[in-house]
Amino acid sequence: MKSLVIHAPRDLRIEEGPEETPGPGEVQIAIAAGGICGSDLHYYQHGGFGTVRIKEPMILGHEVSGHVTALGPDVTGLEIGQLVAVSPSRPCRACRYCQEGAHHHCLNMRFYGSAMPFPHIQGAFRQVLVADQRQCAPADGLTAGEAAMAEPLAVCLHGARQAGALLGKRVLVTGCGPIGVLCILAARRAGAAEIVATDLTDFTLKMAMESGADRVINAQAEPEALRAYEADKGTFDVLFECTGAAPALIGGIAALRPRGVIVQLGLGGDMTLPVQAITAKELRLCGSFRFHEEFFTGVQLMRKGLIDVKPLITQTLDLADAVEAFELASDRTQAMKAQIAFA
Amino acid sequence: MKSLVIHAPRDLRIEEGPEETPGPGEVQIAIAAGGICGSDLHYYQHGGFGTVRIKEPMILGHEVSGHVTALGPDVTGLEIGQLVAVSPSRPCRACRYCQEGAHHHCLNMRFYGSAMPFPHIQGAFRQVLVADQRQCAPADGLTAGEAAMAEPLAVCLHGARQAGALLGKRVLVTGCGPIGVLCILAARRAGAAEIVATDLTDFTLKMAMESGADRVINAQAEPEALRAYEADKGTFDVLFECTGAAPALIGGIAALRPRGVIVQLGLGGDMTLPVQAITAKELRLCGSFRFHEEFFTGVQLMRKGLIDVKPLITQTLDLADAVEAFELASDRTQAMKAQIAFA
Amino acid sequence: MKSLVIHAPRDLRIEEGPEETPGPGEVQIAIAAGGICGSDLHYYQHGGFGTVRIKEPMILGHEVSGHVTALGPDVTGLEIGQLVAVSPSRPCRACRYCQEGAHHHCLNMRFYGSAMPFPHIQGAFRQVLVADQRQCAPADGLTAGEAAMAEPLAVCLHGARQAGALLGKRVLVTGCGPIGVLCILAARRAGAAEIVATDLTDFTLKMAMESGADRVINAQAEPEALRAYEADKGTFDVLFECTGAAPALIGGIAALRPRGVIVQLGLGGDMTLPVQAITAKELRLCGSFRFHEEFFTGVQLMRKGLIDVKPLITQTLDLADAVEAFELASDRTQAMKAQIAFA
Amino acid sequence: MKSLVIHAPRDLRIEEGPEETPGPGEVQIAIAAGGICGSDLHYYQHGGFGTVRIKEPMILGHEVSGHVTALGPDVTGLEIGQLVAVSPSRPCRACRYCQEGAHHHCLNMRFYGSAMPFPHIQGAFRQVLVADQRQCAPADGLTAGEAAMAEPLAVCLHGARQAGALLGKRVLVTGCGPIGVLCILAARRAGAAEIVATDLTDFTLKMAMESGADRVINAQAEPEALRAYEADKGTFDVLFECTGAAPALIGGIAALRPRGVIVQLGLGGDMTLPVQAITAKELRLCGSFRFHEEFFTGVQLMRKGLIDVKPLITQTLDLADAVEAFELASDRTQAMKAQIAFA
Repeated sequence: MKSLVIHAPRDLRIEEGPEETPGPGEVQIAIAAGGICGSDLHYYQHGGFGTVRIKEPMILGHEVSGHVTALGPDVTGLEIGQLVAVSPSRPCRACRYCQEGAHHHCLNMRFYGSAMPFPHIQGAFRQVLVADQRQCAPADGLTAGEAAMAEPLAVCLHGARQAGALLGKRVLVTGCGPIGVLCILAARRAGAAEIVATDLTDFTLKMAMESGADRVINAQAEPEALRAYEADKGTFDVLFECTGAAPALIGGIAALRPRGVIVQLGLGGDMTLPVQAITAKELRLCGSFRFHEEFFTGVQLMRKGLIDVKPLITQTLDLADAVEAFELASDRTQAMKAQIAFA
Repeated sequence: MKSLVIHAPRDLRIEEGPEETPGPGEVQIAIAAGGICGSDLHYYQHGGFGTVRIKEPMILGHEVSGHVTALGPDVTGLEIGQLVAVSPSRPCRACRYCQEGAHHHCLNMRFYGSAMPFPHIQGAFRQVLVADQRQCAPADGLTAGEAAMAEPLAVCLHGARQAGALLGKRVLVTGCGPIGVLCILAARRAGAAEIVATDLTDFTLKMAMESGADRVINAQAEPEALRAYEADKGTFDVLFECTGAAPALIGGIAALRPRGVIVQLGLGGDMTLPVQAITAKELRLCGSFRFHEEFFTGVQLMRKGLIDVKPLITQTLDLADAVEAFELASDRTQAMKAQIAFA
Repeated sequence: MKSLVIHAPRDLRIEEGPEETPGPGEVQIAIAAGGICGSDLHYYQHGGFGTVRIKEPMILGHEVSGHVTALGPDVTGLEIGQLVAVSPSRPCRACRYCQEGAHHHCLNMRFYGSAMPFPHIQGAFRQVLVADQRQCAPADGLTAGEAAMAEPLAVCLHGARQAGALLGKRVLVTGCGPIGVLCILAARRAGAAEIVATDLTDFTLKMAMESGADRVINAQAEPEALRAYEADKGTFDVLFECTGAAPALIGGIAALRPRGVIVQLGLGGDMTLPVQAITAKELRLCGSFRFHEEFFTGVQLMRKGLIDVKPLITQTLDLADAVEAFELASDRTQAMKAQIAFA
Repeated sequence: MKSLVIHAPRDLRIEEGPEETPGPGEVQIAIAAGGICGSDLHYYQHGGFGTVRIKEPMILGHEVSGHVTALGPDVTGLEIGQLVAVSPSRPCRACRYCQEGAHHHCLNMRFYGSAMPFPHIQGAFRQVLVADQRQCAPADGLTAGEAAMAEPLAVCLHGARQAGALLGKRVLVTGCGPIGVLCILAARRAGAAEIVATDLTDFTLKMAMESGADRVINAQAEPEALRAYEADKGTFDVLFECTGAAPALIGGIAALRPRGVIVQLGLGGDMTLPVQAITAKELRLCGSFRFHEEFFTGVQLMRKGLIDVKPLITQTLDLADAVEAFELASDRTQAMKAQIAFA
C-alpha cells in the first residue's frame, strides 16, 4: 500500500506501508480520491503553520473517499464495494465536550493528518485505510471526487449554522478559495437572498460567480467597491470571513449592519481589529472550527442534488503525480480544489 | 371602480365604488391580480369563522398585486406603471409591539379584508387601491399572479423562521393546501434535507411532490405510513402544521424526535392534544401568525428565481367570474390557488 | 439493609435486602434523606399513572442523598464520609441523544424508581445504595435534606433554561406544589422581575409567597384575578405550568403576551386547548422533562447560598414511619415536601 | 437654572441658562442627582475620545434623576413631585432600526451629552430638564442617587442579555469600574454560579468582592492567577470585558471554554487579538452598546430590592463642587461612582 508522507518542507514522498485489517466496528477502505487542503499545503510548503510543526514523518490528507473492501465484526449499514465519504474527525465520544455534543472540541481528538499532538496523527492520503464505521457516510450516486468534498463542505455547513437562520439574509463572503466558495453554496442553499463575495484573484471570483454569488468584487482592483455597503451603518447581515487576513475582516466589519454576525472560518495570525466598531455596532464575531454531524448532512445534501460541488474540482491527478498536484493546488489562478486519484 | 363585496354567506357582489386619490406617502394602484385565501372562502361560505363574523358589507381580499397609477407627495422609490406586490398588513408602527419589531401583533392592526374589528377593515379585491408606499414591494420581472402570491409566501417564510435554521433538517408538512406547499418551497429554500408531506387529497399531494417534497403520504389511504417515522422516539426535526386539524397535529407529535419543533400555521378550533407527549419529548409548539418584513423577503426571493410559485396558480378568472372563482377555490381536487384578474 | 418496596396500591413495605459493593467507578452510599415525589405518590396511591403500571415489586424513590461509605476502584474526587446528592438519572452516554448532550432523552435510560420499562428500574429508597461516581454531587455544607432536594430543583432549573434568559421577565407560575415553588425560586434566581403564582390551596400559596412570589392568586377563591393580566393581548413573558391540568394552562395562555413562552412541566392526560390562541399570539409551548447537568448546577447554587430550599421541607419522618410519610405527602394543606430519614 | 458646561479640556463651567417648559407628552424635571460617567471624564480630561471631540460648549451628563415639576399636555402615569430616573436615550422611533426594536442603533439618535454629531447633543447635568415622558421611569422608593444609577445599570443589563441565559454559568469580569461591578451585580442577579473579577486596583477589587464576586484577582500583582482557568481548553462560559484594553481581552480569551461568549462592553482603540484562538475555540465576541428597555427593567429591579447599587455611590458632591467631583471621579483608588447633587 502506498501513502503520501511529508518529511520536511517540499519533501513529500510516496512510500510503501503495510495494510491494516479492520477490527470490531471498523471497515477497510480502498481510498479513491483525496482533496488537497490548505493545511496540507502548509505542511508541504512550510512544514506547518504557527506553532504546529512536523517533527516526524507524517502521512498527509483528511479529505478522502473510497470503496469499502472489508468489514470488521459488528459493522452494520455498510457493504463491500460501497463508496463512502470518510470523516477525518475521530473524537473520543467520552470527554465532557463530546458528551455535550461538541465533538469537534474533543479533548482527545485524533484528526487525520495533524502534526499536533506528538506523535502526530497520521493522515488518510493512502491507498488502504481502516476507519471506524461511524466515520463513514454512504455516498452512493456520487463520484469519488464529490464524496471527497464532504469534508470541506462540512466545514462550511458548520460555519453556516453558526450564523443561525440565513433565509432571506444578505451575506458577504471574503475569500473565494474552496472554503469561501463552499460557503457561497451553503449560504445559497440555506436561503440567503443576496450574496456578495470578495477576493484578490479573478479566477476564484469567476468560480464564486458561477457558484451563485450575486456579485463579486476584486478587492485589489476595486478597493472602493465595498464602501457603498457601509451606508446607514452597514448592509450585510452576515459575513463569512474565509481569508484569515485582517484587511478582509476589517472591511467586512465596516460593511455589516448593526447586530450583524461574523463567522470567522479563516485561520491566520494575530490581527489588529477595530474592536470599538464591533462594540458600537454590537457585531457578533463567531469562530467556526471543523464540524461534527455536518459531515453526514453534507453528503446527504449532495446525494439529493441540493448542493453541487463538482464544478469546484478543477484538477485530478494520479498518485504518482502527487507533487505536481501539490504545486498546482497552490496556484490560485488555476486551481480551486485539486484532488489526487489513489486507485 | 369595481370591488368584490361580501354581504352574507354565498352573497358575493361586484359593486361600483369611488376611486381614492393618494395622500402623502401613498400610491394609487390598479389592482391586477388577487388570490383567494382560505379566510376569504370562510367569509364566502359561512360569513366568517369562530367568533369572527361579518356584520356589515365588506370588500374581501388581501393577496393582491397591481400597477402604480399615481404617486402621492413624498413618495420615493416607486414609479408610475411599476408592478408592485401590496402587503395587506397595516400596523400602527407606534404601539409597544410595533416598537419591538413585532408589527404583526400590532394592537391597532388594520389588515385588509378582516371582519374583526368592527367597523370591518375593507379588503383589496377592488380595481383601484390606495396604499401606503411602505406596503408596496417592487415586483419588476414577476407576473402579476406571482406578485399576488407574496402574501401567502410571506406567511410561510415567517413560519420557516419560527423553526430556526432548517439547513440539513428533516421536515414534516401536514396539509398541502397553498400554505402547506409554500412551506415545502420555503423549507427547501432554507436547506431542509428531507421533506415529507401529508394530506387527504391526491391532487394536492401531487403538487406537493412537484414542489419538492421527497415523499408524500395520503393520510386517509395509507394511515399507517407515518408510523414508521416514530422509531427511536421519532424522526422529524420540524413539523409545519398547516391543517388546523387535531389528527394531523397528533400524528406529527408522534413522528417528531425529542426537542423537535412544531410550527403551527393551521388555524382551527380547540384541539384535544397529548400534552404529556409534548412534555416528555420536550417538543416546542410555536404558533406562527402572519408576517412582517418577510413580505419583502419573499418578493426578493421570487425575483431572484430562488422560489418559484407559478406552478401553484392553478386558475385565473376574470372579475366578472368571481363567484365561479370562489367555487373553484373551494375544490381541493382541482384548485391550489385560484386568482382573479382585476384589470 | 432495609428498602421501601411498593407491591400494589397502598401496599408499601419495608423489606430487608443485601448490600451491594461498588465496582470500578462506583461508590457505596449510606442513604440519609429521601424526598417523596408526586410519581412515588402515584405508585403508592394508584399503582402507577397513565400506561405506566407496577407489574412486580419495585423499590421507590429518586430524590436522595447520603454519605459515602466505600469507594470502588478508580473513583476520584469523592471521600469516605462525604455527603453527596445522588442523581437518579443514569443515561447510557452512547446513544444518539446522549451523544448530542440530551442525556435526559437517552434511548436506554435507567432512571431510579420507574415502572417503565419492565423489569422495572429499582429505586433509591434504601439504606445502602451503590451508584456511579458521575451520579454523585459533593454536598459539603448542606444538610442531607437539602441535598435530597437537588433532584426536584434540577427539574426546575432545566425548566427555567427552556425559557431562555429570564432577567427582567414577568413570570406566571401555575401550581404551587414543590415543582411550582422551586420554579419560583429558580425564576427569581434567574432574575425575573415579577412573579405571580396560582394554586387552589392557601397553604401552598403561602409558601409560594414566602419563596419570593410577588403575588399569589387562589384560582378557586378569586377566579377573576388572572383576567386583569389579559389586557393588551396579555402580560406575562413566561408561564411555568406545573399542574398538568387544562384549566391552568388555558388560563395561562390567555394571560401571556404575544410571543410568550410556556414551559410545560406538569404531566397530565390529554388536554383540550385553544390552539388558535397559541397560533394567533405566536406562543411557544415548550415541554420540559427531567434534567441533566442541572443536577450539579443546583447543588452548586444551594452550596453558595444562592437558592435556599430548606423552607420547603415541611416534614421529615423516620423510615419506620414511611407509610405515614406517604400519607402526609399527599396532603396539600400541610405538606410541601415530606422526606424520609433513612439513617 | 444652572448647568455644567464643558468648553475645553479641564475647562468645566457652571453656567446660567433659561428653563424650558414641557410640550405635549413632555415633563419638566428638577434634576436631583447626576452620576459622572467615563465619557464625561474623557470630555473633561481630553475634550473627547477617538474621533469624538467637542467643537462647541456642551452640557455634560447622561446619568440623572429628578423630581417632576410640571406636566405637559397628554402626559399620563406621572405625577408632580414624583422621583423619576431619566433615560438619556432619545431614538427617533421611526427609522428601520427603531422599527426593528433596536432603538439603541437608531440612525437619528439624540443621546444626552454626546459630541457626536454636530451640533452636539446637550446633556442633562442641569437643574431643570424637559424630557419626553417615555424617557421617565417612576422611581418611588429609591433615593435620587440610586435612580441616577439606572443608566449604567441598564448598560450592564443589556450586556447580560447579550450572553443569553446566565443561570448556573461561570462568569469572568475584566475591569471593576462601575460597569464591571454592575456586570457582577447583573450576572449574579441572572443566576451566575461563579463570578471571578479582575482589575489592577485593590480598591475596586474590594468593591467587586463586596458586590458578590466569588473571587477577585489583581492582574498586576498576581499575573499568573488567571492561568489556572486555562486547563482543559478553558473554564469560563462568559466574559464581560469592561476595560477596553487588549491585555484583559486576550487573557479572557485564553480562560474561556470552547463556545464561550465574550460580551465586549469596554470601549478602547484598535486591539491586536489572537483571532486564531477565537476561531479554534469557537468563541463568540459580542459587542454590547447602550440599552433600550433595560433602563426600565433596571429601575424595576432596584425598586424590588433585587439589585442594590447603593454601595457603589462612593461620593456625592454639591453642584458648586462639580470640578472637585470630576477630579475625584478620576481616582480609581477612592471613587467607584461619584455623583453631583443638583438640588
